Amino acid sequence: MTYCVAMNLADGLVFVSDSRTNAGVDHIATFRKLYRFGIPGERLIVLQTAGNLATSQAVVSLLRHRLTGEGIHLNNVPTLFAAARLVGETMREVVAHDSAPGTGPEIDMTSSFLIGGQIAGEEPELYNLYPQGNFICATTDTPYFQIGESKYGKPILDRALSYTTSLDLAMRCALISFDSTIRSNLSVGMPLDLMVYRKDSLELPAGHRITEGDPYFEAIREQWCSNLRHLLKELPTAPTFYLD
Amino acid sequence: MTYCVAMNLADGLVFVSDSRTNAGVDHIATFRKLYRFGIPGERLIVLQTAGNLATSQAVVSLLRHRLTGEGIHLNNVPTLFAAARLVGETMREVVAHDSAPGTGPEIDMTSSFLIGGQIAGEEPELYNLYPQGNFICATTDTPYFQIGESKYGKPILDRALSYTTSLDLAMRCALISFDSTIRSNLSVGMPLDLMVYRKDSLELPAGHRITEGDPYFEAIREQWCSNLRHLLKELPTAPTFYLD
Repeated sequence: MTYCVAMNLADGLVFVSDSRTNAGVDHIATFRKLYRFGIPGERLIVLQTAGNLATSQAVVSLLRHRLTGEGIHLNNVPTLFAAARLVGETMREVVAHDSAPGTGPEIDMTSSFLIGGQIAGEEPELYNLYPQGNFICATTDTPYFQIGESKYGKPILDRALSYTTSLDLAMRCALISFDSTIRSNLSVGMPLDLMVYRKDSLELPAGHRITEGDPYFEAIREQWCSNLRHLLKELPTAPTFYLD
Repeated sequence: MTYCVAMNLADGLVFVSDSRTNAGVDHIATFRKLYRFGIPGERLIVLQTAGNLATSQAVVSLLRHRLTGEGIHLNNVPTLFAAARLVGETMREVVAHDSAPGTGPEIDMTSSFLIGGQIAGEEPELYNLYPQGNFICATTDTPYFQIGESKYGKPILDRALSYTTSLDLAMRCALISFDSTIRSNLSVGMPLDLMVYRKDSLELPAGHRITEGDPYFEAIREQWCSNLRHLLKELPTAPTFYLD
């Protein structure tokens, strides 16, 4: 499985992805699911992927190989909307190619993508691209998207995140969301790939990989768990008729 | 959908169920999913249900109608294990009856059950009965079970609940788990049915129904949400290279 979250906030964009892939519980591996495109000072486009790994890798490879070609590519699309369309079309192309007759039993060849970034002269944008290749755009009402195993980590995002949350706080919120998910689903796992983009900087962030035993991640997951238990104890005791 | 949680702890048993049923998003209704059987001073058996409502209601009706008969029933089974077997057999009987040829297109007729309680001379027990009619028993390692929409509300249980958690605290933990689920899934909804049983009391608790606007539930969900946001702010700031 996979878990990716991306946020488009007042101060910029936050992306976090896990890196576990699996076919059954006895065939797991580590693959990066966060990809960066762009030109410093002009554009940043970040892709996160879930679903069929062969498809998502092929899509990213084609998008990369075509960067130097004549046609439309991620380094010359005029808007993030056009970037999302291009990713959707490339995914349809890959799925059509790989689903050709004679390729064996029917399996789901599709992938999902989160596509976020900023192009000079435009606002930062974030798109959630469905397995069908169409997509929706994040707004101030709904400033984040998840793909993959989204349920375990959703309550903390809904309770603590809003469009005006600072990048630093939003990143902590995402990491707690990942901790909840990793504890509950074996098929979501470390390392985590993290990227934070400050609005209008038009820089290509290096990003950071959080590996098993990372001191900061360990510190916040332990503090969170212990303080959460404390919070529960602090809640008022129920009226006695609740317990009768 | 449905969300039910049950816990078998050192001090006794805790059961919480929602009461929303739906067929699509435009056909919702309120049905109780927590049922109490027993004889004061001798036995308590609590059932919670998820899945096909016609099946779970038929199972509970048959179990109730047979209480005065000659055969094995919930008021004379010698153990909770035998009670769980009886519920499983009754479910198979209902599913076989309702799946008779000529009853129309294939739909899933099965239900899941949580079955917990205590019979005089035995320890309290809790069983999770699968749609196939077989079941597993809660232990000190895994003292709780969920049925229905379990994912949103699982992290708080995993972080804060253990076999030695007090009944009062466990109930608050269950209510927070319900709040997380209700916020995320429209098909899980109020009112909530709650029952707490103190080990070896052999009483039949009246239970409590938490309706929309319940002052205690409102107070703890607000306090939880606000303190959780505070907790996140208190976590140490990430090293700067996380944000580059």
